[in-house]
Amino acid sequence: MFQTITIVGVGLISGSFSLILKNKKLVNRVIGVSRTENSLKRALELGIIDEALPLEEAVKQSDLIYVAIPVDATIPMMQRIMDLITDKQIVADAGSTKKALCEALSDHPMRHRFVATHPMWGTEYSGPEAAVLDAFTGRTCVICEKEKSDPAAVATIEKLYKILGMHVTYMDADSHDMHAAYVSHISHITSFALANTVLEKEKEEDAIFELAGGGFESTVRLAKSSPAMWLPIFKQNREHVLDVLNEHITQLRKFKSCIEKENYQYLNELMENANRISKIIK
Amino acid sequence: MFQTITIVGVGLISGSFSLILKNKKLVNRVIGVSRTENSLKRALELGIIDEALPLEEAVKQSDLIYVAIPVDATIPMMQRIMDLITDKQIVADAGSTKKALCEALSDHPMRHRFVATHPMWGTEYSGPEAAVLDAFTGRTCVICEKEKSDPAAVATIEKLYKILGMHVTYMDADSHDMHAAYVSHISHITSFALANTVLEKEKEEDAIFELAGGGFESTVRLAKSSPAMWLPIFKQNREHVLDVLNEHITQLRKFKSCIEKENYQYLNELMENANRISKIIK
Repeated sequence: MFQTITIVGVGLISGSFSLILKNKKLVNRVIGVSRTENSLKRALELGIIDEALPLEEAVKQSDLIYVAIPVDATIPMMQRIMDLITDKQIVADAGSTKKALCEALSDHPMRHRFVATHPMWGTEYSGPEAAVLDAFTGRTCVICEKEKSDPAAVATIEKLYKILGMHVTYMDADSHDMHAAYVSHISHITSFALANTVLEKEKEEDAIFELAGGGFESTVRLAKSSPAMWLPIFKQNREHVLDVLNEHITQLRKFKSCIEKENYQYLNELMENANRISKIIK
Repeated sequence: MFQTITIVGVGLISGSFSLILKNKKLVNRVIGVSRTENSLKRALELGIIDEALPLEEAVKQSDLIYVAIPVDATIPMMQRIMDLITDKQIVADAGSTKKALCEALSDHPMRHRFVATHPMWGTEYSGPEAAVLDAFTGRTCVICEKEKSDPAAVATIEKLYKILGMHVTYMDADSHDMHAAYVSHISHITSFALANTVLEKEKEEDAIFELAGGGFESTVRLAKSSPAMWLPIFKQNREHVLDVLNEHITQLRKFKSCIEKENYQYLNELMENANRISKIIK
């Protein structure tokens, strides 16, 4: 499908992307670009990339440039890349926010060669070691502002994600950011805050270690996520995140109020309402 | 190890308990007691129990009576059972709260044949179909008020849990309930409230279904848990749960305040602090 691609960032997402493309023989050669020498070294060792090059040289040789770095760094990086490309190349990103990036690139003369994508997958781990082969299978990928990209470029990217086993859906950038706040960003805040709650209240760290069951582990695991990745997401998606966070605090206060006032009938209703999620998330 | 045991309740915990005891040939015959005819039928079909009997008949024939039903129902049930047993039998429970039960049984003439236990394992599912063979392996089991039980009864129960692969630890009942609030009960409230948040904000249920990634799934999965089981836990552990819930709301308000005021340095610190959980929960 591609002769050469460049991945900018050699971490969880780009690493997983490269591994599956190589595994499915969709690419002959993968170049890695990163500020972090050690990550490039590890990515080479792990077979994620074939070569590490400076951005300009990498872009020149690539059919596709795939950017998966923190969303604040993505904006200037993407502008640099789009200053370098020709009409034969495609640029795509994998960022968790879309509006700020799409707005920043909207007037770029090469905007039509850019496809804004968000494969809805991740783990709490980061770096090339976190890359896995079956990352995207069965998940949804959102493509934003399709109408601003060349139809052929969109078709190529859509075909690629479908080969990786993803379901592709289209949205405007603001709708994407709103939905992402609901189904992803708030989970991370909840989990960070839950970790801080337990670390604050439970002074006996041994007791946490000893007693924590699977339930605690699954609600708190996102608290291991990288602040370098998540801080810019919360910044860029500030309004939607605040909106959902306010609602979440309101919902928690309902539980608190029921327990305080021993209004167990309403507490039961709150839990029964929450059970509805099992019809949506299997 | 046992000729015959009775499980009271034939659901997630007692079902898993029976399956592993049978699998390891630690018991010859398992009798099931339940108010729910259909659960008994399913438990028979699934090989969880060999026979269903009324409580009195079941207790009479059993070396061990293992009670795993909602914690409010456990108290009168345990009193009935302890009125029936002799000094050759052992009774144990698997409840998520310990103080109310231990207090209620403290003056019972057969208190010494009761061992208060909490195997720290569970899933969001309930009923006999939810039982799994490898439930307890690698988890911790808390035994409370050890000093009020016959040493031989404690030794038998401890040995049994150890054969199942559990690490056994001892605590007074109130300490257990406090720690359980931190590492289990608050996770459930967070998850119930997160489900309600998303169901409230995200009117497009299709979007939740389509976009939810693994992160959302793992933070919200406990919201599928049974209100019949969790309501009495929150009731009995009301003070500790409120204490942790208040702290959790405080922690979430810190995130909210940082994002509102765009105090991103402090937001970063909050996330870095939360990352410490990765040293405790692998």
